[in-house]
Amino acid sequence: MPYVLIQVTREGVTRAQKQALIEGATALLVDVLGKDPSTTFVVIDEVDTDNWGVAGRSVTALRAAAAGGSHD
Amino acid sequence: MPYVLIQVTREGVTRAQKQALIEGATALLVDVLGKDPSTTFVVIDEVDTDNWGVAGRSVTALRAAAAGGSHD
Amino acid sequence: MPYVLIQVTREGVTRAQKQALIEGATALLVDVLGKDPSTTFVVIDEVDTDNWGVAGRSVTALRAAAAGGSHD
Amino acid sequence: MPYVLIQVTREGVTRAQKQALIEGATALLVDVLGKDPSTTFVVIDEVDTDNWGVAGRSVTALRAAAAGGSHD
Amino acid sequence: MPYVLIQVTREGVTRAQKQALIEGATALLVDVLGKDPSTTFVVIDEVDTDNWGVAGRSVTALRAAAAGGSHD
Amino acid sequence: MPYVLIQVTREGVTRAQKQALIEGATALLVDVLGKDPSTTFVVIDEVDTDNWGVAGRSVTALRAAAAGGSHD
Repeated sequence: MPYVLIQVTREGVTRAQKQALIEGATALLVDVLGKDPSTTFVVIDEVDTDNWGVAGRSVTALRAAAAGGSHD
Repeated sequence: MPYVLIQVTREGVTRAQKQALIEGATALLVDVLGKDPSTTFVVIDEVDTDNWGVAGRSVTALRAAAAGGSHD
Repeated sequence: MPYVLIQVTREGVTRAQKQALIEGATALLVDVLGKDPSTTFVVIDEVDTDNWGVAGRSVTALRAAAAGGSHD
Repeated sequence: MPYVLIQVTREGVTRAQKQALIEGATALLVDVLGKDPSTTFVVIDEVDTDNWGVAGRSVTALRAAAAGGSHD
Repeated sequence: MPYVLIQVTREGVTRAQKQALIEGATALLVDVLGKDPSTTFVVIDEVDTDNWGVAGRSVTALRAAAAGGSHD
Repeated sequence: MPYVLIQVTREGVTRAQKQALIEGATALLVDVLGKDPSTTFVVIDEVDTDNWGVAGRSVTALRAAAAGGSHD
């Protein structure tokens, strides 16, 4: 009866990619722990880049810095 | 000081149903554990059907299969 | 396919109380949203009182203050 | 490698405020536990006021009652 | 910068199985979404069987019923 | 009414450090968003190093490699 939460930034994840994440995570629980797929939940949570921080900066700011060659 | 997270698929949950979930979950914590309702939080998280998987398939795909009489 | 997380302080919740929380939360989702109980998950997370804070203080400290008649 | 989730009601949190939350939470983990900021994640989850309950009522209802001078 | 939470019942998951879950979930995010493994977190949360409910009953009760041939 | 979850590896976090995390996170929400501290929850979740993965390896393995001068 596993529950898997996959949290990623909201940056154009397609329906096909979501389906691949659901299939892959379910297969992982079946293969490693022998879980029943019919009671394996996978929830994908897409988070706006303004709302995700790494190293003290939002992903929005990190993406802009990377695109602009910023050194700060 | 309980915190209750209710995660469901986003399929037209009405404001009245949300209020009923909040009331019911709060009452449950008061009744079973004697918690103070004023510090009982209930958060409802609605998840797109593309983003919720069961048995290796998205709920979107499961709903379509059920509606179409698919046997797969 | 709901998922319910009930987070409470670890203060002697009994097995019977846990069963009552599971039954009550499942019934709530069935009654309010017509969900299938067989795919309704309820997870109870017990948190040490040192690890739960309210109003800037741990529950351990709040309990001690309440027991000791502290006014702060 | 900390992960911090900040869940608040969706009531006009600005990009600057989100940046301040990310900076502050990251600094807290660095200062208190000596964590590496480059592997410190902060995720901000904004929740609609209909979907957050306190004391058995939605925040939407609590805000309306406060605005209207309701005493209940 | 994905974050993956894998929640399972605490029923003897070995260190090798945990390592396999970590590797598999990380590979999934790399393969499907092209994420950087160095900022991919995987957290495994093991939940006591008394604290996990399905279909209104704890997993402890479900396991006992299955082992004893109970029909209830 | 914010809820803050701070998830860290279980590596000897002291009670004083937990209190500092609770105070700091609460102050952050008060300072940045003007939230009421009396309804600000902070939950600290300590995760075993076997159960936390980064870059496809458990923190247990990463710590051992770092201590032993491993180059892999």
